[in-house]
Amino acid sequence: MTTLAARFRSLHASAAPLVLFNVWDAGSAKTIAESGASAIATSSWAVAAAQGYADGEHLPFDRLVDCARRIAATVSLPVSMDVETGYGASAEAAARSVVTIVQAGVAGINLEDRNPSGDGLVHVEAAAERIAAIRKSLTAHGLDAFINARCDVFFSGGVDDAASQASRLTESVRRAEAYLAAGADGIFLPGLSDLTLVAEAVSAIAAPLNIMVNAPDAIRPLREAGVRRISFGPAPFITAMNGLSSASRAAFAA
Amino acid sequence: MTTLAARFRSLHASAAPLVLFNVWDAGSAKTIAESGASAIATSSWAVAAAQGYADGEHLPFDRLVDCARRIAATVSLPVSMDVETGYGASAEAAARSVVTIVQAGVAGINLEDRNPSGDGLVHVEAAAERIAAIRKSLTAHGLDAFINARCDVFFSGGVDDAASQASRLTESVRRAEAYLAAGADGIFLPGLSDLTLVAEAVSAIAAPLNIMVNAPDAIRPLREAGVRRISFGPAPFITAMNGLSSASRAAFAA
Repeated sequence: MTTLAARFRSLHASAAPLVLFNVWDAGSAKTIAESGASAIATSSWAVAAAQGYADGEHLPFDRLVDCARRIAATVSLPVSMDVETGYGASAEAAARSVVTIVQAGVAGINLEDRNPSGDGLVHVEAAAERIAAIRKSLTAHGLDAFINARCDVFFSGGVDDAASQASRLTESVRRAEAYLAAGADGIFLPGLSDLTLVAEAVSAIAAPLNIMVNAPDAIRPLREAGVRRISFGPAPFITAMNGLSSASRAAFAA
Repeated sequence: MTTLAARFRSLHASAAPLVLFNVWDAGSAKTIAESGASAIATSSWAVAAAQGYADGEHLPFDRLVDCARRIAATVSLPVSMDVETGYGASAEAAARSVVTIVQAGVAGINLEDRNPSGDGLVHVEAAAERIAAIRKSLTAHGLDAFINARCDVFFSGGVDDAASQASRLTESVRRAEAYLAAGADGIFLPGLSDLTLVAEAVSAIAAPLNIMVNAPDAIRPLREAGVRRISFGPAPFITAMNGLSSASRAAFAA
């Protein structure tokens, strides 16, 4: 029997890249599953917003686990949960949290290298240690999950010149290598969109690369550049809420 | 200080009818509140679907209470929860459930006269007894809430001739009188759309009448007919999920 985690992992190696139209609850997951998805992934921002919380692990952990459980109970596809920095002050605490999430029935996680207790990124060694602790703990519990290591070097705001973009790529690749050595399965570089740099990242990183988009027309060039996973982040939720807002304004003005 | 329940009640007596664009979680409630709503109301069908459950009180009661709490914590408008038949096998059990829901911070409820344990409607006396038990229990707890008594006489399927529509109206008015005498504040007749019958119902029922629509252009004629409350039921959720489905199909086909 192929586990959902193995099936999810194989979707990163098929002919077409894996396209994830991110969800926020069981209802949106069911809708996306019925629209032809091959896997389901959440956006932490959207999951928090749907329940009335800000992003940044303000959503209580038990609500995250419950969300994972309801989605996994509702769809038969592999489910990947965005767990932000892993809901733990230490690597060991994050590993315990991730084991609980995976036991809720999920096949993969997204894990960020943002500092859980403040701004900026954690040191590369601390981020790698967290991934290693999670992988070790999953294995010790007989569990498997695709660990998508999100590296936020490109995701901090501000306009860059070409030289800073190139140095961001160098730092991203350095972090990617450490995360893969620690047990990550894939690398997610949100904020990276320049196609030349994307192609360089695909060449330099020995694992499936995930890029975030917010419109379908961004998919084809990324596929041609060798990106293996394309996700939409909070865009589907924001688009749905914008549509709801427009529809309700029309009703209130009638 | 005007309570939210008093404020919600007064919205049924203002110059324009109350238009409720129904929500299913805190995120959709926030979106609707920011779009200019004067109050927030849920659709039980949509709340259940968003969490991966079928309608008909398959959503566990604690999840309904939690949904009420999160919505009430997220918006400052009056909130009305659709509680189906009241989550209770007896009138007393339903009253206990409604007290818990109102204590979660809501200003109103929708309560159906459908049989909680099977098909069809409960006898009018049993439905009125349930409303009376709820009102009595709320008062005993020092609580107030607008009780919108939903009468499902028009909501069973099938095509009617004019004579059966007229007899449905007679039965609805008879039930409305019993529900108002038992402590209901308003009457909801989903499935009623014929404007002549709507006008007759407005004349015959001595309380704010609620009619369900699924498009804004249905609002003006109902307003002119004297309808005091217009709600959209599951339509906003269904429209949002259809939009999500279209957007994701475009992404999967890119």
